[in-house]
Amino acid sequence: MNQNLEHKRHTLAHLLAAAVKDQYPHAKLTLGPAIDTGFYYDIDFGDGEAPGEDDLKGLQKAMKKLVNKWTEFTHEEVSAEKARVVFAGNEYKLELIEEIEQKGEPITLYTCSGFTDLCRGGHVENPKADIAMDAFKLDKIAGAYWRGDEKNPMLTRIYGLSFDTKEELDAHEERVKEAQARDHRKLGKELGLFTFSDTVGRGLPLYTPKGSTIRRVLERFIVDEEIKRGYLHVYTPDIAKLDLYKKSGHYPHYKESMYAPIEIDGDEFMLRPMTCPHHFELYSTEPHSYKELPMRIGELAKLYRYEQSGELTGLIRVRSFCLADAHIICTDEEQAVEEVGKALDLIEYVAGVFGLKMGEDFRYELALGDRTDKKKYYDNDGAWDKGEDLLRKLLQNRDCSFTEETGEAAFYGPKIDVQMKNVNGKEDTAFTVQYDFCMPERFDLTYIAEDGSKKRALVVHRSSIGALERIMAFLIEHYAGNFPLWLSPAQVAVIPVAEAHNEYAKGVYEKLVAASFRVEIDTSNESMGKKVRHAKKERLPYFLIIGDTDIEAGTVTVESRDTGESTAMSVDELLLKLKAEATV
Amino acid sequence: MNQNLEHKRHTLAHLLAAAVKDQYPHAKLTLGPAIDTGFYYDIDFGDGEAPGEDDLKGLQKAMKKLVNKWTEFTHEEVSAEKARVVFAGNEYKLELIEEIEQKGEPITLYTCSGFTDLCRGGHVENPKADIAMDAFKLDKIAGAYWRGDEKNPMLTRIYGLSFDTKEELDAHEERVKEAQARDHRKLGKELGLFTFSDTVGRGLPLYTPKGSTIRRVLERFIVDEEIKRGYLHVYTPDIAKLDLYKKSGHYPHYKESMYAPIEIDGDEFMLRPMTCPHHFELYSTEPHSYKELPMRIGELAKLYRYEQSGELTGLIRVRSFCLADAHIICTDEEQAVEEVGKALDLIEYVAGVFGLKMGEDFRYELALGDRTDKKKYYDNDGAWDKGEDLLRKLLQNRDCSFTEETGEAAFYGPKIDVQMKNVNGKEDTAFTVQYDFCMPERFDLTYIAEDGSKKRALVVHRSSIGALERIMAFLIEHYAGNFPLWLSPAQVAVIPVAEAHNEYAKGVYEKLVAASFRVEIDTSNESMGKKVRHAKKERLPYFLIIGDTDIEAGTVTVESRDTGESTAMSVDELLLKLKAEATV
Repeated sequence: MNQNLEHKRHTLAHLLAAAVKDQYPHAKLTLGPAIDTGFYYDIDFGDGEAPGEDDLKGLQKAMKKLVNKWTEFTHEEVSAEKARVVFAGNEYKLELIEEIEQKGEPITLYTCSGFTDLCRGGHVENPKADIAMDAFKLDKIAGAYWRGDEKNPMLTRIYGLSFDTKEELDAHEERVKEAQARDHRKLGKELGLFTFSDTVGRGLPLYTPKGSTIRRVLERFIVDEEIKRGYLHVYTPDIAKLDLYKKSGHYPHYKESMYAPIEIDGDEFMLRPMTCPHHFELYSTEPHSYKELPMRIGELAKLYRYEQSGELTGLIRVRSFCLADAHIICTDEEQAVEEVGKALDLIEYVAGVFGLKMGEDFRYELALGDRTDKKKYYDNDGAWDKGEDLLRKLLQNRDCSFTEETGEAAFYGPKIDVQMKNVNGKEDTAFTVQYDFCMPERFDLTYIAEDGSKKRALVVHRSSIGALERIMAFLIEHYAGNFPLWLSPAQVAVIPVAEAHNEYAKGVYEKLVAASFRVEIDTSNESMGKKVRHAKKERLPYFLIIGDTDIEAGTVTVESRDTGESTAMSVDELLLKLKAEATV
Repeated sequence: MNQNLEHKRHTLAHLLAAAVKDQYPHAKLTLGPAIDTGFYYDIDFGDGEAPGEDDLKGLQKAMKKLVNKWTEFTHEEVSAEKARVVFAGNEYKLELIEEIEQKGEPITLYTCSGFTDLCRGGHVENPKADIAMDAFKLDKIAGAYWRGDEKNPMLTRIYGLSFDTKEELDAHEERVKEAQARDHRKLGKELGLFTFSDTVGRGLPLYTPKGSTIRRVLERFIVDEEIKRGYLHVYTPDIAKLDLYKKSGHYPHYKESMYAPIEIDGDEFMLRPMTCPHHFELYSTEPHSYKELPMRIGELAKLYRYEQSGELTGLIRVRSFCLADAHIICTDEEQAVEEVGKALDLIEYVAGVFGLKMGEDFRYELALGDRTDKKKYYDNDGAWDKGEDLLRKLLQNRDCSFTEETGEAAFYGPKIDVQMKNVNGKEDTAFTVQYDFCMPERFDLTYIAEDGSKKRALVVHRSSIGALERIMAFLIEHYAGNFPLWLSPAQVAVIPVAEAHNEYAKGVYEKLVAASFRVEIDTSNESMGKKVRHAKKERLPYFLIIGDTDIEAGTVTVESRDTGESTAMSVDELLLKLKAEATV
């Protein structure tokens, strides 16, 4: 945000505080900063009257009235003693004064139209003239602990939106509305894609037939694509003995996110939190030649990780998910880096299929180890240096920009995170490609080199579309429920105008089904308008309206969900069109 | 077995006992019956010398010598007192005498060439003349508890094979050898299809890439076939709260085969032992109209059931398996029975794809409830009568024979078991179709009827190819590792005769890969003979040998694994041939 906008927002926080103090004299003000969509002020109303969401309009009105007198800010530097007198009885401000004093920084009071606040400064000079009062709006009320610590008292946080112009405020509100409309939890319910059951348990989604179709299509798409690229797909168990995770070294690091063990015949079994040790065990059951490497072992692996109830969010934060996971066993650094590059190629290909653009929708982040944290990171400086350097060079040589983050690596090596932006503009790590020099030691992963000697392998961990749950959530929001033909649970609706057209419609339906399309036919007695409305609500990519003209001409009238256009064509033409469009 | 053969076998048991007593005078004879491949005799050698497998040849030789004097059996009925004198010191025979006496049955002693045994009779009249001594063979030695009770002393059981003719003995031995060669554990290792790891845990298979290909092909085959038949495939969680299994009533009945609960935030979660409650919860998340029924909810569901370590057997008895499961929600009995019929149609179709014949390879068994066991079976006589009657009528109206078994039903209703014969001729329940009038009550499964009223649904539980682990074990043995083209992990091997043919071979390879076949190419420097032997060992259905003649004629020489025939054809002809054969 530009500095001027930040000053406006900060000024509005003062104005809000003044309006609150007018109406609620018992209120204790605490802190009121500018944030990226406006500002907030955290206030302690104690046991006295406090505003609710309904009171925001009134406060906003009061601010708009007050601003007329806000034409100039004055400020003075005061001693801690004087500041303590001004804010006597407000333990929050007193705590802040104490802190500033201890740091030896100046204590400044800012006053505008008789309202004084403890403040570092950063306001507009003339609030009345400088702030477009139709470009701000009090937004909502939430609870917030003093200084974000749950041991402290709970305060009332009043949020305001603030922009330079009314147009920008409107645009922001429109974006929020759109993001809410696209929320995968909302759309998932509306379109009937997945559900939850309290009896089954929180964070454990049940996919409906429609949601399951999307998932199955995604699963087959990624497995087939990976196989084409030389991956060997396997199935390994979703539970394993605790010993396995002790051997891999995951146990101490991941203990907190693993579920409690299940005892079977004296052994402790765990729901697996990751796939790596399973693939390493599989690899190790027989010796391998350098000729077999790189060996790309892939799996659609069900994983289980503990999430607190409060953290569970639709399909994004769940307690069990299915990761399109893979571990690539490599002979040496050169091969490993080449495989990291190929993994990025695959990720870019998949992103391209979903219409996502590098730089715009996603970007790379090189996650480095924090070498000072010997507890968190496997101790081998030489290997870290080499690995980090190789990944950095790889990214430098690719046509992409990237950032670096220290302390974000896996415990066994550096990684490249693919940061994906969701519809809210919020960034999240969607997939990662990790470089591992630690596990091969722990699992004694070796291969027979060309000279007959036994050599230590290197491993690349990677995902291609990440967890199916998360990518589904992302795609539901990305497409706003309007899935492209190949992903759409039902692809074509056949809608005869009246009963007389049912037979012809059924013939069309059967031809499409025989060509392996997912088709619905509506031969109910409802009016055509109602049938079309129903199909549109279900977001099917194509509706075939079939009436007299079609039967006479031997055609179908194809209406597109996305363009709204209607075109008459033969069934054979339609099949060609659909096949071309459904080919990823 | 015909009575005459039974008499021969029983006589041989006497002859064995006589030979044993000659060489091991301290041996205490116990029981020696005829069995379906010959006979055995259980003997207590106490602390004295006992024969090992190496001694069987000697005993056999002794029997062949002895038989020359065995030309006539005599028998006499004796008092218990006399019998006790004859078998004084043999506590086993004394126990038998005691039992016969208590039942008030006659006690008979049979003697042949001076050897006397306590026996009910049933011998050939003239062993020397009546028994072809080259049609019997001492087979093996095993341990067996006296009367099968582990609290009793362990005896030495000597097994003999016995048939009417040497040809039949040879044929039997050939069958056993063949079954051993086909054992899925042996072939699974030889062909590298699956493995186990002690660190992962017993009974938890890890599928190699090759085994995974078979599994994936099977999964897609059955899911696609079911979808074609109107099934709605879903994904539901593999764990759920204990409450769910209490609600379904599975918990008390299945408790013993369920694993211990995992506590998450105060709730107990279970690895699911079955899918039904998950599908019922999914169904119940929204109301359904009669128009949506029958609703066929299918899933490839991972299930977990406790098996004792000693019971674990390759892929047949595992602790986690993936069931091709489905639950069909029906409006009424008529619809439910129709759906049972359709499920049998699907099972017969699938069996047909695998080349299995009804009556020969599999048969139906109607499993009825044992109404006297109120603990084991849901109490509703009327519903049981109706359900059992409907299933019986259905089977009677189908072109199949079936048997009935009381006390083999599920706790919630009668079922039809599909009994499949494995290569040993042993029968096992491969799939079941169950009729359920109990769960719909427990889960309050309802639908809105045509008249707007809420009605109770009925449920059909069924599998189509059963557990993927088990069907894979069955198919490995059924095909003896020679998988048909569509199931074969690799389908075609391209083998250039020499380096000069590599480039042309690669072109052929790429055309096949582009047509989605699973192809291997061997451009190594090995001799052609070695390359062909390798491909044959891997049991690939087709080998393409590519040499000068092929390059000149623009063809490939296709050798079939199954017929051994070699034919030259163009790549286009080959593609047509392969596509036709790979279409199930």
